[in-house]
Amino acid sequence: MSPEPAAMPPHDHAVRRGRLRAVLADHEPAPDLLLVTGSANVRYLSGFTGSNGQLLIGTQPDHDRLVTDARYLDRAAHEAAELPVLRSRDAPGAALTQVGAGRLAVEADHLTLAAGLALKERAAEAGADLVVSQGLVEQLRIVKDDAEVARLERACALTVEALGWLLDTVVGVGVTELDLAVALEQRFVALGAEAAAFPSIVASGPHSAAPHHAPTARALTHGDLLTIDCGARVEGYHADCTRTVAIGHLDDQLAEVHEVVRQAQAAGRAAVHDGATGDQVDTAAREVIEQAGHGAHFVHGTGHGVGLEIHESPGIARGSSAVLTDGTALTVEPGVYLPQRGGVRIEDTVLVAGGGARVLTDAPHGLRVM
Amino acid sequence: MSPEPAAMPPHDHAVRRGRLRAVLADHEPAPDLLLVTGSANVRYLSGFTGSNGQLLIGTQPDHDRLVTDARYLDRAAHEAAELPVLRSRDAPGAALTQVGAGRLAVEADHLTLAAGLALKERAAEAGADLVVSQGLVEQLRIVKDDAEVARLERACALTVEALGWLLDTVVGVGVTELDLAVALEQRFVALGAEAAAFPSIVASGPHSAAPHHAPTARALTHGDLLTIDCGARVEGYHADCTRTVAIGHLDDQLAEVHEVVRQAQAAGRAAVHDGATGDQVDTAAREVIEQAGHGAHFVHGTGHGVGLEIHESPGIARGSSAVLTDGTALTVEPGVYLPQRGGVRIEDTVLVAGGGARVLTDAPHGLRVM
Repeated sequence: MSPEPAAMPPHDHAVRRGRLRAVLADHEPAPDLLLVTGSANVRYLSGFTGSNGQLLIGTQPDHDRLVTDARYLDRAAHEAAELPVLRSRDAPGAALTQVGAGRLAVEADHLTLAAGLALKERAAEAGADLVVSQGLVEQLRIVKDDAEVARLERACALTVEALGWLLDTVVGVGVTELDLAVALEQRFVALGAEAAAFPSIVASGPHSAAPHHAPTARALTHGDLLTIDCGARVEGYHADCTRTVAIGHLDDQLAEVHEVVRQAQAAGRAAVHDGATGDQVDTAAREVIEQAGHGAHFVHGTGHGVGLEIHESPGIARGSSAVLTDGTALTVEPGVYLPQRGGVRIEDTVLVAGGGARVLTDAPHGLRVM
Repeated sequence: MSPEPAAMPPHDHAVRRGRLRAVLADHEPAPDLLLVTGSANVRYLSGFTGSNGQLLIGTQPDHDRLVTDARYLDRAAHEAAELPVLRSRDAPGAALTQVGAGRLAVEADHLTLAAGLALKERAAEAGADLVVSQGLVEQLRIVKDDAEVARLERACALTVEALGWLLDTVVGVGVTELDLAVALEQRFVALGAEAAAFPSIVASGPHSAAPHHAPTARALTHGDLLTIDCGARVEGYHADCTRTVAIGHLDDQLAEVHEVVRQAQAAGRAAVHDGATGDQVDTAAREVIEQAGHGAHFVHGTGHGVGLEIHESPGIARGSSAVLTDGTALTVEPGVYLPQRGGVRIEDTVLVAGGGARVLTDAPHGLRVM
């Protein structure tokens, strides 16, 4: 059993809304109101987790509102007690009423084209200006505060513990991919996670050549590579961790691929520091793989931001100019996939802290032979 | 144990794409190509389940393409073998290349405002016309074919079996809501489901007054109402079923509420037939609750379509003009919620078949006292 976890610091949603207000004041043109429709953004700014909830963020704190429907009034009172609730199933309508003839900003990444076009018409009728914005809250979310780091740390610690348990006590010849996926997810919950962060990828033998393989009834056999990509979720925060192990003796080519990926992943981690760009981290990992002649077999980016969503800003890929700073949480996960033969991926969730990289999914990276 | 399930009929995706082609030919204006971006629509039309996949549907079957990236090439070959694959992370760009100076339709409900505005600009530059469409594939999906019905039936049968097991062997004083949610979801998988259709709602005592309560560490106690809203998922198809039971003796008011909801749910089921509207089903259930004086305590619609998504067309609510026909799958789930005291909801997944209603989640509706 894990020791009883320490209490985690509470979220300060009002501080986050204050930071967003400063961003809105600097926006060109500066909106009078922002309609927040992205569900992770709503949770970040208010704590509300219901499936139907939007925020109105005004130029003053007392303009802020949570919009939800009757099913979620109790939850709103519990999770977002500091925010007045507008009971409505028409958040755009509520926003137009509040903004009057002013400027209403919307999140263009979290409104459908259909909803956006309809709102544009209604705004024109109401004499309001519509401002199309992108990434305002997501930019804030890149830098995790103490409350968020505590939850990410716990999610990552649970993940490492469950994965270690799985490798020590369940993995073996004859066990199926589905068996492993189910056992792992049950273990997450038993250890105190609220759920798995995403459906676990358990890919054995030739299946490991597919980066996003869904587990099947295939049983492990001697000479397999086994890639497990998994994570626990704690109070909405996602861990993401991958290890690839060997079931008995590997042939030389697959063992060599594992070593190349291990070195590439270490190089990627070493490139993570305050001020580095996503492109630099990607390049550091990619060069190791290219020099080993496997560039064409590394078919995805090196990583992604992680937090309230399993994939969030910043992107860690070729051409990504996003800059890492203290508080950025990201994954480093290069891979090499040989069609029909098998693949290796090694992944950590990493936090930029004290200028450098702190690995949150702290488990051995070397080839483990089961 | 359940008996070994019979093999289920395969999906005929080409027939579904043919039906869509007929819809496109009748559309005003008729597009030369439809870019399908809704993930359930992509699965319905092709079988592909990867997290990144879009379809191009042309005026001839040999124009159809699946667009995905390198991570999913193996999965595409396996799940959608009959469709040529375009390897790209820019499906809108691929669509523009294919349509040339023609008319490209997009799914306005499955494209963000940001992506829609960007595509509009690119289309103008390329000399293509953009057609904004809504609900074309969703309308087809309302009528389930034999392959879909078989999967819905199995998901519902597993749900009823797991829920019965839970009530018979796990529910009791002292057990927590979270215990029940975890046990139920593990049972779904053990019985052959791929996963739970959605996070189970387990709401006891005063918690049952919140229609969408998330399970907590609250332990069951004498006199509680206990509402369990859950479902299994089988090959992408979702079951949805709710029962409310009593933990020991209920006070008279709560017992009366259960009886009102039972009658309302039966009236809703009785109103389901080929040719009925969503509004008619809602009204049939709602009138029973209003006549009992609880109209203000029924705070949601009576139901929703169900299939590849847990909530899909048609809506079963006040003012819904959607018409049910043979093959429509929907839920009937009225509820009454007394603030701070408790609530009752009873829900079935129902199929319109042979002109009438066939209940797929066939379990007793009367008040069960544990």
